[in-house]
Amino acid sequence: MTYCVGVRNRAGLVFLADSRTNAGLDQISTFRKLHVFEVPGERVLVLLTAGNLAISQSVASSLRVMMHNPDEKNLSNVPNLFSAAKLVGDTVRKVHARDAESLQAFGIEFNVNLILGGQIKGEPPRLFNVYSAGNFIEATEETPFFQIGESKYGKPILDRIVGDELTLDEVAKCCLISMDSTIKSNLSVGLPLDLLCYETNSLRVSKHQRIDQWDPYFAGIRERWGRHLRTVFDELPDPGYWSAQQP
Amino acid sequence: MTYCVGVRNRAGLVFLADSRTNAGLDQISTFRKLHVFEVPGERVLVLLTAGNLAISQSVASSLRVMMHNPDEKNLSNVPNLFSAAKLVGDTVRKVHARDAESLQAFGIEFNVNLILGGQIKGEPPRLFNVYSAGNFIEATEETPFFQIGESKYGKPILDRIVGDELTLDEVAKCCLISMDSTIKSNLSVGLPLDLLCYETNSLRVSKHQRIDQWDPYFAGIRERWGRHLRTVFDELPDPGYWSAQQP
Repeated sequence: MTYCVGVRNRAGLVFLADSRTNAGLDQISTFRKLHVFEVPGERVLVLLTAGNLAISQSVASSLRVMMHNPDEKNLSNVPNLFSAAKLVGDTVRKVHARDAESLQAFGIEFNVNLILGGQIKGEPPRLFNVYSAGNFIEATEETPFFQIGESKYGKPILDRIVGDELTLDEVAKCCLISMDSTIKSNLSVGLPLDLLCYETNSLRVSKHQRIDQWDPYFAGIRERWGRHLRTVFDELPDPGYWSAQQP
Repeated sequence: MTYCVGVRNRAGLVFLADSRTNAGLDQISTFRKLHVFEVPGERVLVLLTAGNLAISQSVASSLRVMMHNPDEKNLSNVPNLFSAAKLVGDTVRKVHARDAESLQAFGIEFNVNLILGGQIKGEPPRLFNVYSAGNFIEATEETPFFQIGESKYGKPILDRIVGDELTLDEVAKCCLISMDSTIKSNLSVGLPLDLLCYETNSLRVSKHQRIDQWDPYFAGIRERWGRHLRTVFDELPDPGYWSAQQP
């Protein structure tokens, strides 16, 4: 399993991915699920991947290989993020054309789910969710984030906090809390994490952090969030439904 | 969809169920999913149901009908909760024997998930989770709660708070917060709610509350929990990963 989240707001974009992959509980590995495609000063594109690892690696590698050929349409020359999302979708379809039938013969579903975000000079930062079928949707002000993989445990905190008024650091903090809730509840999501914060119009990657189990900030967030949540819980009144009925 | 949770701790048992059922988004109804079987002074049994409504109603109705025949094994005469769980499992299997094949002809999976809890005089309160196959597991000190239906959104708060030291009212408060997070994230879980708190050794139902959208306590919890969560969030430090790199 996997948990990745991408958020877009006025300040920029935040991407967070775990790195655990598993084929059964007895085969657990660490793989990077956050891929950066950068032309400093001109464009930054970030791809988060979930689903079948062979498929998502194929997609990421194909996109990387295409960049070596400047005559071919690729992530370093597409004119805008919409074209980039189409290119990622097309790449998923190519992998599907090559692998889907063989996978089916082994009863394996063609399953991949991607978040693509970034900025290309001349347009604002944009964020997309690309599906297994190669189709995609774009984040809007009303729906400023996408999650892929094990998304449910970490959704309530995003629903309550994420908004246009947050700084990038605050969005990153919210994503890390969301990740912590997911790690607590699902063994197949695990450290280390990849965190990337992209500031609107910076057009380069300056804030990219690997977070492992010894990271003091993440350890502090985990401990303090749990403790403070408990304080808030204790401060809320108990239900009084039955106290009136008692003498 | 459905969200139900049952918790067992030293103080007793807490059961909370939503009441929304849907067959597609355009066919939404309200059905009770919390069923009480009581012999005051002798036993209290509570059944929470999730899954296909026709199946879960069949199971609950069959269990109710059996109680009219004192010569038959039923929930008012089984000697202990383990036997009660076996009886519920057997009832699921009877419904399966009658309905599963017909459902399959329409491509409908035989899907039901039940929480059974309560106390029978002579043993402590116990809590079980009964599956579609009629098999079941029992809650322990290490795993003091079961959730059925849409369980993920509301699990982190239970993981962090529920424990043996809580009062019944505190457990109820925690379940209501868990329900609020679920309702916020999944349209198919909805009010009104059924809340039942059972005190160890009381052997009767004295705390059973229907909670609708006008309920001032639940509305207060929803509003205050969100607001206080935001305060805790604001109080946590922002990540400082990049501040050292800046002048």
